[in-house]
Amino acid sequence: MERTYIKSLNEKVGQEVTIAGWVDVRRDHGKLIFLDLRDATGKVQMVALPNHKEAHEIASTVRSEWVLEVKGKVNARPEKMVNKDEPNGKIEIEILGIKILGQAKELPFELGTEINIDTYLDNLPLTLRAPKQRAIFRVQAGIVNTYRNFFTEEGFVEIQVPKLIGDDAEGGANSFNVDYFKHTAHLGQSPQLYKQIMVGVFERVFAIGNVYRAEKHSTTRHLNEYTSLDIEMGFIKDHTDVMNMENRFLIELEKELRTHYENDFKLLGAEIPKVPKEIPRMKLREAQALISKETGKDISSEPDLEPEHERWLSDYAKKNFDSDFIFITHFPTVKRPFYTYRDENDPEYTKGFDLLFRGVEITTGAERIHEYDALVSSMKEKGLNPERFSFYLQAFKSGLPPHGGFGMGLERLTQKLLGLANVKEATLFPRDLNRIDTLLSK
Amino acid sequence: MERTYIKSLNEKVGQEVTIAGWVDVRRDHGKLIFLDLRDATGKVQMVALPNHKEAHEIASTVRSEWVLEVKGKVNARPEKMVNKDEPNGKIEIEILGIKILGQAKELPFELGTEINIDTYLDNLPLTLRAPKQRAIFRVQAGIVNTYRNFFTEEGFVEIQVPKLIGDDAEGGANSFNVDYFKHTAHLGQSPQLYKQIMVGVFERVFAIGNVYRAEKHSTTRHLNEYTSLDIEMGFIKDHTDVMNMENRFLIELEKELRTHYENDFKLLGAEIPKVPKEIPRMKLREAQALISKETGKDISSEPDLEPEHERWLSDYAKKNFDSDFIFITHFPTVKRPFYTYRDENDPEYTKGFDLLFRGVEITTGAERIHEYDALVSSMKEKGLNPERFSFYLQAFKSGLPPHGGFGMGLERLTQKLLGLANVKEATLFPRDLNRIDTLLSK
Repeated sequence: MERTYIKSLNEKVGQEVTIAGWVDVRRDHGKLIFLDLRDATGKVQMVALPNHKEAHEIASTVRSEWVLEVKGKVNARPEKMVNKDEPNGKIEIEILGIKILGQAKELPFELGTEINIDTYLDNLPLTLRAPKQRAIFRVQAGIVNTYRNFFTEEGFVEIQVPKLIGDDAEGGANSFNVDYFKHTAHLGQSPQLYKQIMVGVFERVFAIGNVYRAEKHSTTRHLNEYTSLDIEMGFIKDHTDVMNMENRFLIELEKELRTHYENDFKLLGAEIPKVPKEIPRMKLREAQALISKETGKDISSEPDLEPEHERWLSDYAKKNFDSDFIFITHFPTVKRPFYTYRDENDPEYTKGFDLLFRGVEITTGAERIHEYDALVSSMKEKGLNPERFSFYLQAFKSGLPPHGGFGMGLERLTQKLLGLANVKEATLFPRDLNRIDTLLSK
Repeated sequence: MERTYIKSLNEKVGQEVTIAGWVDVRRDHGKLIFLDLRDATGKVQMVALPNHKEAHEIASTVRSEWVLEVKGKVNARPEKMVNKDEPNGKIEIEILGIKILGQAKELPFELGTEINIDTYLDNLPLTLRAPKQRAIFRVQAGIVNTYRNFFTEEGFVEIQVPKLIGDDAEGGANSFNVDYFKHTAHLGQSPQLYKQIMVGVFERVFAIGNVYRAEKHSTTRHLNEYTSLDIEMGFIKDHTDVMNMENRFLIELEKELRTHYENDFKLLGAEIPKVPKEIPRMKLREAQALISKETGKDISSEPDLEPEHERWLSDYAKKNFDSDFIFITHFPTVKRPFYTYRDENDPEYTKGFDLLFRGVEITTGAERIHEYDALVSSMKEKGLNPERFSFYLQAFKSGLPPHGGFGMGLERLTQKLLGLANVKEATLFPRDLNRIDTLLSK
């Protein structure tokens, strides 16, 4: 008999079905053995009765996380046994036959036990199966899917960007070294240079892929390997075209999350953010003046925002504009990478932006320098050797339009959307100073 | 005035428009200066006339690959000037004004010049702009998009898999080493172990990402970094469920290619393959018997197929079944990785398959061992230490259903679909023994 997914059982009351999945919970009352079975789509209570002898015997041997195929009858529960909070709370499966598809060994702990983050990470092949974890990574897949569909619709072409690179746009200090056939290669910190090159080919491109930061941080917001969602677009007026594009993407994301992931957010106690039609925008110096005035602490000449200022500005945007998001623009040229476009009216500041979301920067973007001579000058000012960027510079020698783009860390976005305490909870298999799976902790 | 994309100009005869793009070709006849302008959507001929003095002067200074914004009038060409082979062959833009958005330096060669593969690769920021290259990577983006949509529709969840790994399922000899905070990490050769772990979480998963092979090959079919399209699915009957899923994906791919990419295939002189409803299937030993009989050379006990045999079988499938594809199953256990399921009736052979397409293997897939004890035995038989796989093995201790999957190299698939001589032509920025961009060749 063809397998029925558990989410569809409600429509099959009175019928015989075959279902399959993992034993979620087992309660052995002797004569009655209750098994909750879990598949990719849901969970249902099953009962083995003594009159189905063979099935009852098997049911008495199975344990949590064993994988079963079950033939059973979908019965309506008696009125007083109905559980209105469960999707399948009105039904119960009467087990007619059990086939064991996969056995589990004794588990280190029951799924759903309260554990600390290290135990959680050491046991991901088990702990990722819990409902909250599944919700997190279902939402994450939804973000990626929305991203891809939105930008494809907008005429962006997806590109596959190499991660093994020679030199790095962001400087060498934070890059991992790779032994590459007697040479040293690096792991890319971003697809920046490649996506700019590709503006010359397709005008609009996007990339989804791993990036690497050899930072010795051990915080709740840093990862050494993460997934970056990147776009780059040509023929822009200035950085505001990029901001507007991101704004529209976030509106689409909100719509998708409300349509498909409300239950996941509910399970995680998280709120889907309202994305305003125009996310509030503020220059860094304006933001700093505001903070200085309100807090009495003069930060008006600092070159960047401290984490506490990001939180302050997010609170401010929430209170004054009912927005979980705020764009901060015009960071100082000295603090931004060499390829960032400078404001013609005030070259000390860049046509770049950060997007803050619920207290944290989730995106950095900018208009880029598109003229070869200006770019080479900028490199020299920053102490970089243009010869080491000769491959990249070919794109500029070959003519590029005004362009800009942004990069967004998928895990951090997931974390802040779902209100997770640690970005590692938004990463399937996080790498950090002390951890590549269990390897480094051994 | 809002920008009009070049593909839409045909609908605007008689109107004034603003277009933007790169100068593709420039022909200066003194009084008349012809410029072909190229954007992401097409190409159009423009003419600067002496009566629009300022524009005419600018037109006389611009060169190939300069980036322009042009205000112009869409004129119908006189009958005898119509070029029926060009999408915009019936129109011409009369230039009213030109704004230079980006200048190019003198180019090393004109786009479209015949060059060898090394010159092509050394100059990718320019050479990728040629029509054929753009067609290749447009099709490649289409493959990825179709892959993603198909498997999402089939209930697969996309996962982000780490590439920085501790140990490697495929053995250490071919992996790149990474300096990782005083430890040595490796670059993953496939997402194999992670996608199997994730079957325990979502039943069905897919992944798109870079994988690494430190092979010292320098051939037309090998890359040291490539994009792998991977799936893994639980609750299968056996490997044929995986083959059927791939078969259906390929049918969908054919449909998408015919709908959206016929022009790109035409430009490349390539034929969209017909995918049979059931791709022919043959056991390795049957295939070898056939080859031995037809060629008179006994290969019936070889453990694997040589490239010439893959070509022979592809020809055979084309002649006898009118199919560009053929599945070869049941490779010897000794030649397959430790996680491959063995045929119960003949444990010397695996429930695995290769998919051959136009003479080359493009996919390897299999049912996997899903029982912990059997997997540990298989590791030991292969001389592997199960302790080094303790993280992965947790998934099996926690219960897994029968499952299987496949991996497919995006670049090789693109190459064979489009009839390209070298897989590097199907890779935006290929890495090989001698090349990371221009770094290693310097």
